[in-house]
Amino acid sequence: MDTELVELETGSRRFTDLTDAIRSFCAGREDGLCHVFVPHATAGLAVMELGSGSDEDLDRLIDELMPRDGRYAHRHGSAGHGADHLVPAIVSPSLVLPVGSGEVLLGTWQSVVLVDTNADNPRRQVRLSFLGDH
Amino acid sequence: MDTELVELETGSRRFTDLTDAIRSFCAGREDGLCHVFVPHATAGLAVMELGSGSDEDLDRLIDELMPRDGRYAHRHGSAGHGADHLVPAIVSPSLVLPVGSGEVLLGTWQSVVLVDTNADNPRRQVRLSFLGDH
Amino acid sequence: MDTELVELETGSRRFTDLTDAIRSFCAGREDGLCHVFVPHATAGLAVMELGSGSDEDLDRLIDELMPRDGRYAHRHGSAGHGADHLVPAIVSPSLVLPVGSGEVLLGTWQSVVLVDTNADNPRRQVRLSFLGDH
Repeated sequence: MDTELVELETGSRRFTDLTDAIRSFCAGREDGLCHVFVPHATAGLAVMELGSGSDEDLDRLIDELMPRDGRYAHRHGSAGHGADHLVPAIVSPSLVLPVGSGEVLLGTWQSVVLVDTNADNPRRQVRLSFLGDH
Repeated sequence: MDTELVELETGSRRFTDLTDAIRSFCAGREDGLCHVFVPHATAGLAVMELGSGSDEDLDRLIDELMPRDGRYAHRHGSAGHGADHLVPAIVSPSLVLPVGSGEVLLGTWQSVVLVDTNADNPRRQVRLSFLGDH
Repeated sequence: MDTELVELETGSRRFTDLTDAIRSFCAGREDGLCHVFVPHATAGLAVMELGSGSDEDLDRLIDELMPRDGRYAHRHGSAGHGADHLVPAIVSPSLVLPVGSGEVLLGTWQSVVLVDTNADNPRRQVRLSFLGDH
């Protein structure tokens, strides 16, 4: 297995497109599976369309499902931070993608998105691993 | 790795049972992991019991969590289509299953279900891949 | 691939920490992927922080999203049991983790948690599988 820890500048953005980083990591390989893993407790990975309004819609859905108010037992840092810690239970931080001849076999409208609602951490890591033929 | 793209007639159904197709793909293999991936931006994969009312319950839960109304920034096609694009953020389009001696090691009450709320696409694809001993 | 079925006493607890069992299973191996799978239809796997209030918060979120009342078509056993059968559609029973030199590469605040809201089954199984270099 080949593995690599990618450093990201996420700033205060909730959504960061990982598609290009994953395509670069897989380029030149043969057939196999690419595993994407976020080693943080307030983030997840979504496979979805970007740039057509759906990121804005997901932004709102997250706040509807996990409102940023004082209801959480986990309370420290920013207001509503307890909500951040529920995100990975709903949007898993682990994702597997199929790779064929070094190409990530995503559908036309699919991007891989890091979902991280915790604006207090502007730098994040993602671990990419490839297991397959070589 | 062995991989295959399966063509499905999903019609306007929200739920399509993939269990038999996955069992057939794995039959005759040895030990390994079967990866299931939907290359579409409005669909996900659930492992759940079918035929006991839970599909009807999931149908309603999806509409409760992501109501089909005019709230979405992503708006084109059928009314509430923006909701379809949020489904894969909650129900991931990527799933890994354990395989032992060519048998998919699901529990007694588990089926693998394609969840696709977008009734405008009656034909769908699912990619099955096997990585393991051979 | 190496695989093992782990028996758990979950009692009536909704959350059971699997981190130590997974670390033990992976210890002494090389680089690869560890697959965790729950062969039950009312359970899922979350990667999250434990012991800081977030388990209590997830407990409440599950009941907010899937209230334990009479709304379900799947109805038998305890009141609200239909809700248990929706849990795996939202919190998947399948999870893949990266392993490096026999160490599970979780982040500092991440634990692997079996989420099982069905209090009627005090004993559960989890299948652990390792695929990688050896």
